[in-house]
Amino acid sequence: MSGQSPDQPHFATAAVLGVGLIGASFALAAKAAGLVDRVIGVARREETRRIALDRGAADEVTDDPVAAVAEADLVYLSVPVGVMDDMLAAMAPALRAGTLITDAASVKAHVCRAAEAVLPPTVAFVGGHPMAGSERSGPEAAREHLFRGHAYFLVPTSLGGDEALAKVACLVDAIGGVPSVVDASLHDHLVAATSHLPHAVAMALSLAVAELVPDHDARVRFTGSGLRDTTRIAASSPEVWRDIFLANAAEVVAGCRSASASLDALAEAIATGDADRLTDLLRDARAARLSLDAGRDRP
Amino acid sequence: MSGQSPDQPHFATAAVLGVGLIGASFALAAKAAGLVDRVIGVARREETRRIALDRGAADEVTDDPVAAVAEADLVYLSVPVGVMDDMLAAMAPALRAGTLITDAASVKAHVCRAAEAVLPPTVAFVGGHPMAGSERSGPEAAREHLFRGHAYFLVPTSLGGDEALAKVACLVDAIGGVPSVVDASLHDHLVAATSHLPHAVAMALSLAVAELVPDHDARVRFTGSGLRDTTRIAASSPEVWRDIFLANAAEVVAGCRSASASLDALAEAIATGDADRLTDLLRDARAARLSLDAGRDRP
Repeated sequence: MSGQSPDQPHFATAAVLGVGLIGASFALAAKAAGLVDRVIGVARREETRRIALDRGAADEVTDDPVAAVAEADLVYLSVPVGVMDDMLAAMAPALRAGTLITDAASVKAHVCRAAEAVLPPTVAFVGGHPMAGSERSGPEAAREHLFRGHAYFLVPTSLGGDEALAKVACLVDAIGGVPSVVDASLHDHLVAATSHLPHAVAMALSLAVAELVPDHDARVRFTGSGLRDTTRIAASSPEVWRDIFLANAAEVVAGCRSASASLDALAEAIATGDADRLTDLLRDARAARLSLDAGRDRP
Repeated sequence: MSGQSPDQPHFATAAVLGVGLIGASFALAAKAAGLVDRVIGVARREETRRIALDRGAADEVTDDPVAAVAEADLVYLSVPVGVMDDMLAAMAPALRAGTLITDAASVKAHVCRAAEAVLPPTVAFVGGHPMAGSERSGPEAAREHLFRGHAYFLVPTSLGGDEALAKVACLVDAIGGVPSVVDASLHDHLVAATSHLPHAVAMALSLAVAELVPDHDARVRFTGSGLRDTTRIAASSPEVWRDIFLANAAEVVAGCRSASASLDALAEAIATGDADRLTDLLRDARAARLSLDAGRDRP
């Protein structure tokens, strides 16, 4: 990863706003690929800054995003969706002309619209969404190869156009990701179904099981790997997911309605003892699940 | 596991009806623990019989359950729920007086009622449900230690009473399981919430994602580990799960209604932008999920 091609973009100073799992991994990968000379890591928490520095994910750290972006020709925005609007507005006046900005939020229409609304026309903004993650979070979980082989969605905006898009695609490629350009609305529809809805469903199941079995000991004694796997992502951060759901509200609500209707159809077939209808539904569900793995290399 | 205590039950011939993952694992564990001298493995499919024999999970094999139980003083019923009624009725006339029968179905009220209705009063029946399993199925996946450390629920019936119950509890203990006596209705309520409902929810989610994203390539490209984990059990056998759902219909339907209501509550909070309500729901969901692991040794 340390060899760099002649047409690879290069930046003197990258400001990474939010040096958690994604931001710190980006910094490690970008430095290893020779894309940036210097990384300024920004985080509110002192401990996060210290770990990012210790791990080599930042050359300098600060809690001041405005001061950091003022020195940067590349800004990587890996803060939670809920603080994105305020962060974009705060940093806008401090950005230098020609700076390239990209983000890592899982909701794109909201973020790209906000960027177009508040950033100056002298900078470029390309929306990004790396399909990489980990059970763990924070800079302590960061690693250079986090993005390797994973899809990395890119959304063009009116700021910077095709040139900026091509530059970020090169950057993603250089850190091992697989760049894939997609329209913001389509992106948000697709991630609502494949990521936001599964979170909502896992959370609803978790709530239902607690309601159906209030006795904690009984719940634990009867819990097998099926329930554990199905609800694993229900333990995700409430604040992060509240903001994601609200930033992609219409799509997430439509997804919930669809899942609710499917569950009602299953319940109806069970309640009426309609074995044929139930078999059809379960066969369709099985085929749909198996199709998620089809044509995909095993991890 | 090969040492046997003096008060451990002992059987001359065990008939294992259904030598799949559970039945063949039981046979391997029972033989290793010195509980049985001889195992007759019963399966419809020739290949299943051959593998059970090759793996040492049976000393003899046959496709005739009636002939097998006629020679047995222990019968282990590990056939799908959907064929349990017919199997019990078919074997009833052939059973010898004093034979101990137990099953491994995940639904207990239905199976215990059926056993009490058709089996002769000269035999003993204790319902059983091992909380052990595997991604894989069939005798090729069987292993002696499958039950080790896992809860194994036991349901008393009017056939055999406390004496039979104590005998099966010793037997479960000897194969490494953790016997736990539970009333049939309570068992079915608890597994509806912790096992049957998660399957129904995973299947409903799988159907919804296919409906929301009909394009297969887009679905695969946007699928991450969250969706994969949450829907893993949706790939379970449609026929097996149809029969489980129908055998525990009232409880499963009540579970589906509860999950559907929780999903509607989430959707409502998202649709109305009620951030406080949404935060509360997601915090409750997270706490409920984390509680499933609390006080439990890591696998």
